[in-house]
Amino acid sequence: MGQEPYRYQTVEKHILAMMEQGALALGDRLPSLRKMSSNLGVSLSTVNQAYVELERKGVVEARPRSGFFICRHSMRLPRTEISPSSMDSPRPVTRIGLIQTVLEAVGRDDTVPLGVNAPDPSLLPLAELSRITTTVVRENPKRALQYTPIPGDPELVHQIAFRSMEHGIPVAPDDPIITTGCMEALNFALRSVCRPGDTVLIQSPTYYCFLQLLETLGLRAIEVPSDPENGVSPDDLHHVLTTFDIAACILSPNFNNPDSSLTPDRAKREIVSMLAQRHIPLVEDDVSTDLHFTQKRPDTYKQYDKEGLVLLCSSFSKTLAPGYRVGWLLPGRFRQKVLEIKATTNVSTSAPSQIAIAEYLRQGRMTRHLKRLRSAMEKQMDTMQLHLERHFPSGTRVTHPSGGGVLWLELPHCIDSVELFFQARAHSIGIAPGAIFSTQDKFSNYIRLSCGSPWSEQLDNGVRTLGTMAHALTE
Amino acid sequence: MGQEPYRYQTVEKHILAMMEQGALALGDRLPSLRKMSSNLGVSLSTVNQAYVELERKGVVEARPRSGFFICRHSMRLPRTEISPSSMDSPRPVTRIGLIQTVLEAVGRDDTVPLGVNAPDPSLLPLAELSRITTTVVRENPKRALQYTPIPGDPELVHQIAFRSMEHGIPVAPDDPIITTGCMEALNFALRSVCRPGDTVLIQSPTYYCFLQLLETLGLRAIEVPSDPENGVSPDDLHHVLTTFDIAACILSPNFNNPDSSLTPDRAKREIVSMLAQRHIPLVEDDVSTDLHFTQKRPDTYKQYDKEGLVLLCSSFSKTLAPGYRVGWLLPGRFRQKVLEIKATTNVSTSAPSQIAIAEYLRQGRMTRHLKRLRSAMEKQMDTMQLHLERHFPSGTRVTHPSGGGVLWLELPHCIDSVELFFQARAHSIGIAPGAIFSTQDKFSNYIRLSCGSPWSEQLDNGVRTLGTMAHALTE
Repeated sequence: MGQEPYRYQTVEKHILAMMEQGALALGDRLPSLRKMSSNLGVSLSTVNQAYVELERKGVVEARPRSGFFICRHSMRLPRTEISPSSMDSPRPVTRIGLIQTVLEAVGRDDTVPLGVNAPDPSLLPLAELSRITTTVVRENPKRALQYTPIPGDPELVHQIAFRSMEHGIPVAPDDPIITTGCMEALNFALRSVCRPGDTVLIQSPTYYCFLQLLETLGLRAIEVPSDPENGVSPDDLHHVLTTFDIAACILSPNFNNPDSSLTPDRAKREIVSMLAQRHIPLVEDDVSTDLHFTQKRPDTYKQYDKEGLVLLCSSFSKTLAPGYRVGWLLPGRFRQKVLEIKATTNVSTSAPSQIAIAEYLRQGRMTRHLKRLRSAMEKQMDTMQLHLERHFPSGTRVTHPSGGGVLWLELPHCIDSVELFFQARAHSIGIAPGAIFSTQDKFSNYIRLSCGSPWSEQLDNGVRTLGTMAHALTE
Repeated sequence: MGQEPYRYQTVEKHILAMMEQGALALGDRLPSLRKMSSNLGVSLSTVNQAYVELERKGVVEARPRSGFFICRHSMRLPRTEISPSSMDSPRPVTRIGLIQTVLEAVGRDDTVPLGVNAPDPSLLPLAELSRITTTVVRENPKRALQYTPIPGDPELVHQIAFRSMEHGIPVAPDDPIITTGCMEALNFALRSVCRPGDTVLIQSPTYYCFLQLLETLGLRAIEVPSDPENGVSPDDLHHVLTTFDIAACILSPNFNNPDSSLTPDRAKREIVSMLAQRHIPLVEDDVSTDLHFTQKRPDTYKQYDKEGLVLLCSSFSKTLAPGYRVGWLLPGRFRQKVLEIKATTNVSTSAPSQIAIAEYLRQGRMTRHLKRLRSAMEKQMDTMQLHLERHFPSGTRVTHPSGGGVLWLELPHCIDSVELFFQARAHSIGIAPGAIFSTQDKFSNYIRLSCGSPWSEQLDNGVRTLGTMAHALTE
């Protein structure tokens, strides 16, 4: 990986944007290296790297002594647009059977990894973290073997507090509570603020594990639309709050799983203030924000929280070490309740995992690793989009996320994505069918594809096979 | 540690039993080495080791050319007897505040460790497990970094199944579900079989975390007496089952925390059959059984389970690696429900912890380690009893457990053990006050002391100070 992982990608994006806007069409010649270099103020070699990359992706072809020419019709599938859904009444959640089937792929090596949202091990600092783990366990066998305090290993707690502060989140050094992954943070948060039978406001579509969590806890869900381009609208939220008795909300500020929507910072501020007026807790799933492709890290809801009503949940599972099972919770005013729940769930989180990640953070390795990971994820998502366009039936639309790790595909209406899921599974291809992301039936022709792995022959074959299946289902 | 860790202790116990029965009194001369050796059929050096050990403990003194003489009045405090309590109606659980205060000592180094029930690190195979951990993480960085399947790392699942089979538990190789400690197993088990508002039958006294767990889950408790000598009586259980609507039971088969009671195997069989007739699930806390001081491992309830109604919960926290947070659940017929709950709590358990313990078991190291640990725990408990007798006010009674790691003390009636707890805490001495082990008030003059640490000056001072405080509270 070069010194400037972003620069050539900027050039690439520029070309792709020109194509989308129609400024470059099939058969057109790309501007010369020299011209592009001077237009964009980057080096010749950077432009060259971008052109070669586009050639590798099959977007352009090099013709001897003539330059690079566009050889593909369109760049990407059109953006998906979700029609504003009727905000139905609260309903019990009953997707657990299908979700369970989808989850069976977790931790399996024999499946094309388009179903599970996790970074491929090759993108993680395996050797570095493994070396740090062995060192801290060897040097502190006693610390590794003993219970950590219930809130977590103090060094890790502090490291997470410092990182949160850097992100503009108002937090004291001892505020974070360590959890066994983000899912556990969400579980504790929700159990701290809800009682069985309560109604919880969620985005639609939403991460299926939230639905499963609500079902397990005997909670009811009311859905507000999540628009891939504009996230959650304060107006929609206001409508629900004034119509129903809401005990809590679960919202993803950025790169909502599955539609990768990002709620604008202004809307976040408005939502936090609207909820504060009504004393309604907001459980924030911040697990994807670190995977932003934008220059600036988008804000979290927690940044606008003056009342301690936002419970921010996050983890290292999408960025550093899924198997270590280390997440955290900034519990706001619900600290005591969260600690009670943690004490009766598993008391404390694995000590070797905690002290290894604390040391990784202490050595300042996270920032550089994240920069590389983001760059890789963006590239993978880009490549995936190009291949989808090639193989999927016309009428397919897809999100164009500015971060995260998943794409959300709207297939032609006649396709039942649960059927596609089972067909794919029979070919050892994992995908997530739209039905599991809502209590309603409006996503029956959607699928979510993970972009967590570098492009490979396995992925290439997987996407091609999926496309063939999708074509067949339109007939 | 010698080749035969048990033999000299058998001799010691024999002497102590003679003292308890009055066959040896203050000032009496111990039988000669030769006589004792021939009586008990052990070597001279074994008898000598036992006598020297008793001298070290201050029970006997050696007089030159005369032999060993009893120099202490009585050996141990008398056994505690709990009067059969009225089996009250089910009641909500509300101890969580006090329990929280007691739990604050978890993971703290600055407190005399009489409060938390965990083995001292010096009794754990720190170096061995640390070496295995570093090796498996170094050799399998990818396996350590990735999610394991939801039920757990397959190798660990199999190892636990094999150990269970060795203990006579009917289990298939894939049955165990790995959890983040035993507490999590209990949490999942209880959530699988109960709904908020349900009534759960518990032993009285019971482990305070169970009360906290019931409170957190909105469950009600009905208590049946746990007798230190005879555990739970099938008759008492029958009475409760025919009087109240019971959704589930939590029972500890052996060395119930805090009274270390062991329910006889015959009673276990009867209880399992009684519950099966009524289709009532039994959540079994088996975390202490491996710490038996008896030759034979006492049975578990699960061994008598024909209907899949027993959910056995256990962990390595009291025997191998508290901080690794690895436990398991044999879920019987509730497997699917448990997996659903696990998927919405934290998906999977820390991979480095799991694969390290799997390898430790695979190498066959556990059996030898447990043998040493049991021997050490028994010795520590013995020593603790002798010191209690020396320092605590008359009227104090104590359990004489045949396993586990805690002693349960009945203090003179006028002592409020919550008061003693706060006084001790002010001197950085951790103890567990009786009140937190029941929803009723009958244990207000009881305390639980942990025997997890080898005898030391710190413990000596701690027990002496505690005794002084207890004396003062009787005035």
